[in-house]
Amino acid sequence: MRMSKLVGTRTKEHPAGCVLDSHALMMRGGYLKGVCAGIYSQFLPLTRVCRKIEDIIREEMDALEGQEVLFPVALPGALWRESGRYESVGNELLRFRDRGGAEMVLGMTHEEAAVHLVRDYGVSYGRYPFFIYQIQTKFRDEARARGGLIRVREFRMKDGYSFHTSQGDLEQFFARCLRAYERIFARVGLPQVQAIASDSGMMGGEVSYEFTLLTPAGEDSVGHCPCCGRWFHLEAAEGAACPACGAENPVISRGIEVGHIFQLGDKYTKAMGMRYTDESGASRAPVMGCYGIGIGRLAASVCEASHDSHGPIWPVTVAPWQVHLCALRAGEGAVREAAERLYVLLGKGRTLYDERDVSPGVQLADADLLGAPVRVVLGPRDLAEGLCQVESRDRARRETVPIAQAAETVERMLAEMRREIEGGGLERE
Amino acid sequence: MRMSKLVGTRTKEHPAGCVLDSHALMMRGGYLKGVCAGIYSQFLPLTRVCRKIEDIIREEMDALEGQEVLFPVALPGALWRESGRYESVGNELLRFRDRGGAEMVLGMTHEEAAVHLVRDYGVSYGRYPFFIYQIQTKFRDEARARGGLIRVREFRMKDGYSFHTSQGDLEQFFARCLRAYERIFARVGLPQVQAIASDSGMMGGEVSYEFTLLTPAGEDSVGHCPCCGRWFHLEAAEGAACPACGAENPVISRGIEVGHIFQLGDKYTKAMGMRYTDESGASRAPVMGCYGIGIGRLAASVCEASHDSHGPIWPVTVAPWQVHLCALRAGEGAVREAAERLYVLLGKGRTLYDERDVSPGVQLADADLLGAPVRVVLGPRDLAEGLCQVESRDRARRETVPIAQAAETVERMLAEMRREIEGGGLERE
Repeated sequence: MRMSKLVGTRTKEHPAGCVLDSHALMMRGGYLKGVCAGIYSQFLPLTRVCRKIEDIIREEMDALEGQEVLFPVALPGALWRESGRYESVGNELLRFRDRGGAEMVLGMTHEEAAVHLVRDYGVSYGRYPFFIYQIQTKFRDEARARGGLIRVREFRMKDGYSFHTSQGDLEQFFARCLRAYERIFARVGLPQVQAIASDSGMMGGEVSYEFTLLTPAGEDSVGHCPCCGRWFHLEAAEGAACPACGAENPVISRGIEVGHIFQLGDKYTKAMGMRYTDESGASRAPVMGCYGIGIGRLAASVCEASHDSHGPIWPVTVAPWQVHLCALRAGEGAVREAAERLYVLLGKGRTLYDERDVSPGVQLADADLLGAPVRVVLGPRDLAEGLCQVESRDRARRETVPIAQAAETVERMLAEMRREIEGGGLERE
Repeated sequence: MRMSKLVGTRTKEHPAGCVLDSHALMMRGGYLKGVCAGIYSQFLPLTRVCRKIEDIIREEMDALEGQEVLFPVALPGALWRESGRYESVGNELLRFRDRGGAEMVLGMTHEEAAVHLVRDYGVSYGRYPFFIYQIQTKFRDEARARGGLIRVREFRMKDGYSFHTSQGDLEQFFARCLRAYERIFARVGLPQVQAIASDSGMMGGEVSYEFTLLTPAGEDSVGHCPCCGRWFHLEAAEGAACPACGAENPVISRGIEVGHIFQLGDKYTKAMGMRYTDESGASRAPVMGCYGIGIGRLAASVCEASHDSHGPIWPVTVAPWQVHLCALRAGEGAVREAAERLYVLLGKGRTLYDERDVSPGVQLADADLLGAPVRVVLGPRDLAEGLCQVESRDRARRETVPIAQAAETVERMLAEMRREIEGGGLERE
């Protein structure tokens, strides 16, 4: 991709109304544009990050024998009446009527749609367990949307639903899915995400885990007890004591929820009349689990966890482009020619190539905002000696190498970065 | 994928209310399930077909230097008021209010959102032309939804928007996009799709082409004049004469619209205040083109064009699985063992493996409904001689080969099929 063609504008100025660094940097870098409160359009750099995140999630869900399905965004109110949530959920559920006057809702989660899809299928114990998931747009009419992609009204989400004939089988799968989630967060560059047991709120069921990125920028308060080692959510009413051992000196952080998994029991299947015949011929309601990750929120969280004041430092696994090639003084023929050749060698598909005849300061600032993990800088002074600079976005690596060795140096740096993220501890059972 | 794990049910019976073969076969094959009028959920076989179609479309759009973006499903009414369409479009535009009482719509096309996204960017002639596209869910509140995925209310669509500083530049890009569309339809297995000049209706602008799959099952009437060779849309009022040469003996078909591209002129940019500064310093409104393809409708159209009474005959480029492996009498240990080994050799990711202990009739009927282009049948009688059957879904190819040669026979058949589709005439300029 050539920078002169990249649609979107980049600015130095901190945009008004941005509290989170990730929000400000993604606005400054031309990743997204607000359409109205809590609703954004995305430019190419962000759709590329999101797509890589989605691919990683798909791989991990498929490894759990997940089957990708697709539920509607607009759902009949009748389906939500079956579960009782049409009445029980507040104004964050957007209700409307279609042209014929029928009650409709915009899906904020899809438990009802999942049960609807499989209740004809799951009629015999032999067909269990099974696990379906989708990646789809959702809408939650938040009263106070804020924080860029962290708390929005419209968002893309991976939501999965598993069905089981016993609580024990659900628990076994739930544990496998928890490990898959840990792999997902590690692979997108967030190994510090912490699974914390939590209330499941309006979703029903009893056991749930919230995956929390520990960051001062988050809006959830979590505690860590130095006495018993337990992580917990901090409710205002509880005070600051550890709920497990009662110690009164837990370490408090404000976190961002990046995923949530629930054991739902038979709340939805029972209410919606999903039944199967067990080994003895008896009719029973299956138990369910559900498993969510917000795609855009995860992208913003990666940025929140990995940036400096100049822009995002994208982990190699989710970066919109792997390499950023700057041709300094690109107006000079010799620089331009060498850069064009290098662009091909580096791989056009994964390289963002700045061939604009603008100042080096503008080029380097834009490279910081776009956050490719490796940068190649080619300028007239180095070129005179046949050299170029290869450096990492996080400033940890920097080498001056002959231009002929640029591609292999880039390859080595990218491979090292990949190993740092995916090298150890991510094995599947 | 093992058939015993595939979520979804398959039936012999023609489902009630299905007029189109594609609708009936996709219901019978466990591809989709109706949620309410014109709104469906999709099972794995259909999400796999749609994903392959999307990948082909992405390749062709990226080859036009298209940049993938993402617009919201729910849009502020204010944006549609800017273009005038909030008032001018009928009830197929679903209007609602959010919790704060603000006017909203569900996007049925995204011209307004496209102009909103790029109007800060496209301020100087040097930034033109540019082309953005998205693949996203849309909603059109059809009064009479019918025909399975052919005429639905909620659908996924690729919609692209190009921006130019002159009508001539738009026309040049439009012609390139028209050829890209022809490649897309050929690559998904529909080379017979015909580009027909048409009215652009509520989209505005003057020139548009509709891409029509010629099939008796379609709902559009198109004519072909044997006298002057011209294709045209047949309006009821026109009678059956060719609008170009007046000949009164055109050949009439009912067709399915699978894509539509429009030259929009400055209708949206002017109304929404998008301006750029030209070479002379004057302020002007850019001209736009827009380019749509419905993903689900295209999947259904492929099925409509390529099926027999037993099920879809998926072209190799979009088939949910490339190979269907039937282990007849899978309850017998020797068959099961040989089949398990073959499953690995054929490639688990691209093979649907029927290891169920059900009758051969059920297995073969299900294989027909799932429509993989190549089938390998392993049964006790052939196995005793070390043989298996390798055959194509369209019944054109059938070979009895030693089991050790099954994988290479499959590979050869798939390669032949791929060459037949992608072999000639699809070169890009």
